[in-house]
Amino acid sequence: MSFEGSDVNGSLWVGEGGKIHVIDQRVLPFREEEFILNTLEDACFSIREMVVRGAPLIGVTAAFGMYLASGNNSNNIMETLEEAAAYLNSSRPTAVNLFTATRRMLETAAYCHDPAEIENTLFLEASRIREEEIVSCRNIGEHGLPLIEAIWERKKPSPVQILTHCNAGWLSTVKYGTATAPIYLAHQKGIPIHIWVDETRPRNQGARLTAYELGLAGIPHSVIPDNTGGHLMQHGLVDLVIVGSDRTTRNGDVANKIGTYLKALAAFDNQVPFYVALPSSSIDFNMEDGLRNIPVEERSPEEVVHTEGWDGLGITRIRVLPENSLARNYGFDVTPARLVTGLITEKGICPATEGGISGLFEDLKI
Amino acid sequence: MSFEGSDVNGSLWVGEGGKIHVIDQRVLPFREEEFILNTLEDACFSIREMVVRGAPLIGVTAAFGMYLASGNNSNNIMETLEEAAAYLNSSRPTAVNLFTATRRMLETAAYCHDPAEIENTLFLEASRIREEEIVSCRNIGEHGLPLIEAIWERKKPSPVQILTHCNAGWLSTVKYGTATAPIYLAHQKGIPIHIWVDETRPRNQGARLTAYELGLAGIPHSVIPDNTGGHLMQHGLVDLVIVGSDRTTRNGDVANKIGTYLKALAAFDNQVPFYVALPSSSIDFNMEDGLRNIPVEERSPEEVVHTEGWDGLGITRIRVLPENSLARNYGFDVTPARLVTGLITEKGICPATEGGISGLFEDLKI
Repeated sequence: MSFEGSDVNGSLWVGEGGKIHVIDQRVLPFREEEFILNTLEDACFSIREMVVRGAPLIGVTAAFGMYLASGNNSNNIMETLEEAAAYLNSSRPTAVNLFTATRRMLETAAYCHDPAEIENTLFLEASRIREEEIVSCRNIGEHGLPLIEAIWERKKPSPVQILTHCNAGWLSTVKYGTATAPIYLAHQKGIPIHIWVDETRPRNQGARLTAYELGLAGIPHSVIPDNTGGHLMQHGLVDLVIVGSDRTTRNGDVANKIGTYLKALAAFDNQVPFYVALPSSSIDFNMEDGLRNIPVEERSPEEVVHTEGWDGLGITRIRVLPENSLARNYGFDVTPARLVTGLITEKGICPATEGGISGLFEDLKI
Repeated sequence: MSFEGSDVNGSLWVGEGGKIHVIDQRVLPFREEEFILNTLEDACFSIREMVVRGAPLIGVTAAFGMYLASGNNSNNIMETLEEAAAYLNSSRPTAVNLFTATRRMLETAAYCHDPAEIENTLFLEASRIREEEIVSCRNIGEHGLPLIEAIWERKKPSPVQILTHCNAGWLSTVKYGTATAPIYLAHQKGIPIHIWVDETRPRNQGARLTAYELGLAGIPHSVIPDNTGGHLMQHGLVDLVIVGSDRTTRNGDVANKIGTYLKALAAFDNQVPFYVALPSSSIDFNMEDGLRNIPVEERSPEEVVHTEGWDGLGITRIRVLPENSLARNYGFDVTPARLVTGLITEKGICPATEGGISGLFEDLKI
């Protein structure tokens, strides 16, 4: 199997016999494998263990998890679904898409008058959420593209240099990605670009996933240690930063992969535009002050102690630390809105402020 | 062999028969091995390949390299030494100690009226440079200790939390270290401390060397991905940052391991004191505007593409990137003086300004 044509299916698709397929992101870029979600437990496992990751894809996976749970047609289907939602919600704490998706699926089920129709209704609703994420990402690309075009007009024939952190590509959504959507569209339009890919320790989503995606698409890129971005910006080697978001508050504070805040500080210090690309499904309209309120997942120190890679024969794990040293592993940080140049959403670009966000998403305001 | 008692010898020592021994830092913490410098070529190799690293230790190693070169008693010993200095100077570009040490050794040789005495004189001079670095580090510790004591007085019984980047410990000097010298003295005085150790990609000097040192000394520490420091500072989990320096300009700009600048930005943004500990041998009194003038080494991308660690049987390298992705590997960055709270030197603490530095080092001003 090869994922060369994976943009046809994206990172999650419904296969033959209605089975839910995802790409197993734990083994990329070394092996290209699928993982099939047969049960609610499979969906929870795939989110918790990061078979799938990225806020939008977590939301879509959770939606299909709710559909899978509805297959257990117990006497009290709503109780079963409430439990399924709680189980899914406990799988990871930071991405708001997870909670939004499970709530929406519960509401859809509650509006379904015929219990026999719930399973089918939930399948359709999950498929709709998947489709909406694809359309959102495509629109994010269309809205972000002019930013790249403007830089290209200014500096051609030098390529536009864009820095990104972690993976906010199609692997983290379904298709196109968020931060990568404008990048893919710029590349399709023939604008010369070069992407600085933060390797994104400890799980190396940049080195493993973003580099894999860009390689498939034939987009020039260089993987750099997470330490490097500031130096590059000091020397004029970054024209634009675009990252994704796991949760953005109504006032524009951005939770994203740990280390994003450090890059935002460097961008601010060097007057490099720093944009966050996100679908509105990643906006938490009920929350402000992200630094205080967004829960930041602390994951197993093992992800820091050991690094995983290809040893020539297979995927292997090596220990980098001394045997008795401890490690800590915070998954995300929060970039204060004051450091964000703008949010690239499916409805357009807005300032990272309450006014900016509510201007675009009038209907979603609480 | 165990380096448990290595603070007796430090990271470079003169062994039996006058042989120059160093600890092979390429294999720590997994194996404890010595490397013997028999020739000038050995000294160059050990600097270039990072058998030894850290600005002060590079300087001491280069000094002994000059001594080893003088053993080749050619007709024109000064010409031989000039060539040796040029060869050593080409081994790594950023640490100013390297150039200071070779120049000093050349001057010492030039003042030696009896060519037959040059080899012995250079041995004594190199030993003196080694001894001076040890005394400097000890004094850095004494001057830095009150910073930690003051925090302890304010927050006891909670331990003082200190973040450091890369390895500026005794492995990078000869004994005590620079950034670690106040830490070791505080620990000896019984002040409860906890050290956040940046793993320091791509070569993991924090995870491998600083964690090893702190483990030997029994000092509580946690290794963290380089992405983490900003998040910790935002949440009040860092009381003080202390890092070393490979070269500091006369106006206080600090070249240090890549990523230092990002931590300095985060410290500034969160009002966490950010100190740089360095002997005056790391100050380049002839240079200002470090961002423009300090040469930053670009090393092999292989150090990013592959990660080295322990696979249970031996030291092994694994590839983290997709097979066809490229990488870039800048060794250092420059932290502008405006972000540095102060310099901890062997003569005391001063502001990172031309006035502050020249106030302490009147005699070394150009």
